[in-house]
Amino acid sequence: MDIAVLHPGEMGAAVAAALTPLHRVLWCAAGRSPATRARAVAAHLEEARDLGEVARHAEVVISICPPAAAETVAADVLAAGFAGRYLDANAVSPTTARRIADAVRAAGGAPIDGGIVGPPPRTPGTTRLHLSGAQAEEVAGWFAGHLLEPVVLSEAVGDASALKASYAGWTKASAALLVAMRAHARAAGVEAALLAEWERSQPGLRERSEAALPRLLETAWRYDGEMAQIASSMDDHGLPPELHDGAASLYRRLARLADTGTDPAEVLDALVTDPAAEQRGDGRPAD
Amino acid sequence: MDIAVLHPGEMGAAVAAALTPLHRVLWCAAGRSPATRARAVAAHLEEARDLGEVARHAEVVISICPPAAAETVAADVLAAGFAGRYLDANAVSPTTARRIADAVRAAGGAPIDGGIVGPPPRTPGTTRLHLSGAQAEEVAGWFAGHLLEPVVLSEAVGDASALKASYAGWTKASAALLVAMRAHARAAGVEAALLAEWERSQPGLRERSEAALPRLLETAWRYDGEMAQIASSMDDHGLPPELHDGAASLYRRLARLADTGTDPAEVLDALVTDPAAEQRGDGRPAD
Repeated sequence: MDIAVLHPGEMGAAVAAALTPLHRVLWCAAGRSPATRARAVAAHLEEARDLGEVARHAEVVISICPPAAAETVAADVLAAGFAGRYLDANAVSPTTARRIADAVRAAGGAPIDGGIVGPPPRTPGTTRLHLSGAQAEEVAGWFAGHLLEPVVLSEAVGDASALKASYAGWTKASAALLVAMRAHARAAGVEAALLAEWERSQPGLRERSEAALPRLLETAWRYDGEMAQIASSMDDHGLPPELHDGAASLYRRLARLADTGTDPAEVLDALVTDPAAEQRGDGRPAD
Repeated sequence: MDIAVLHPGEMGAAVAAALTPLHRVLWCAAGRSPATRARAVAAHLEEARDLGEVARHAEVVISICPPAAAETVAADVLAAGFAGRYLDANAVSPTTARRIADAVRAAGGAPIDGGIVGPPPRTPGTTRLHLSGAQAEEVAGWFAGHLLEPVVLSEAVGDASALKASYAGWTKASAALLVAMRAHARAAGVEAALLAEWERSQPGLRERSEAALPRLLETAWRYDGEMAQIASSMDDHGLPPELHDGAASLYRRLARLADTGTDPAEVLDALVTDPAAEQRGDGRPAD
């Protein structure tokens, strides 16, 4: 079978690696960075020049991209004439996942909803691909026995995205909250007192707040969009969207600081002193 | 010395207990509940009929009340003619603490800022009274050797409140976030899948989300106002206020559910199904 993976970033390359033993895996080179090309070559993927070539050859398209780009990627693939199985494995809200699925069905294709929990896997047991939709079982079969462990949730598109939103809504928003409160203490001149109190009654929190920063600086530019998707899903379910609006705001600020270095003290200072940091980032490339 | 404690709720009674061995401790009965009276009697406090009597007799007033009431309590005490040392030990923003201090100074009194971290203490080491202000060292002396451990931060009013806001801004907002994400998963029909994923990659989170609920239901009516104070302090320091606006919103919903029982499943269901729950509570008594 020919399967296209759009686009082989770190996670996309891991997904592709699970498929190459049995399938021909395409990637779409148009507009991609040298780093993506290097990953694609290392993973033995075959190059498709553009989405038209993807649509002509692939029976399956797997979309792995920043959450904010997921609907555009789907629309572009469908506009190129694709009418096969379309797995959206992005961190979008259930409502966005259902809208993508509706578009896929309208084009004559078959949608599958996916949600990945965990880092790009290097060892077994760290990372799951949750799947829902009528063909979730079949898709799960392609990944059986691989580092990226498939978990079938249901036949309903939206369930995999709901699981991912519920999970990341805690892990990523709580990381934003922790960094924000340390920045608050620092800005107010009581950071040392907060660290002393944490040491006594919240052991490990100091280390967590420091260990998180370098990784968050790297990923903030796409966490922003993910938090917006979760805020929207919270609202859809009658829960307060502000928690994730606030996390999105913090990640926008961190995204603007990605190039200022990773010294925690400098980042915390810059978080509260850059009046422009609140504005949205400059649209870094999708992978 | 005569010290008034306004008002002996659970925490106020613990503060009073540290003072009664050496001082006469007054409480103000006007408008207080039978539960407060019982606590005052048990703690051997002497009754003052009203704030006028407090102002005539007390050299020190300690205010321990819901954050939303702190400024009103201070204004009432000063209006009654009090011009001594005034310790505001409430979970208010540094800006609110400084506004209270300005009012105390304008009336001829001496302000001290306090922030309590931990539960009403029953064993040593659980609870700290952080203090700042010109007379913080002296106040700390009154509590030396008691269950409520004094910690002097600085001579600047606002520092104790900033420490408390930074600390509770993590503990209480993260508790709200955790409950919210479990409610989200339940509302979206993927709670079992979330619990299974938590079991694998976030051990302890299920238990934390369940253990928190009964306590949060009891305290939500005052956490609402505390989150609002923290949101305001975040904004003052150039950080996103939405994180704590969202937590305040969740606590308002929980406050409305306080009488529905403490079965976690029922509370989680009610959190997302009561369209009126978002509205502010009915103003339960201050202690």
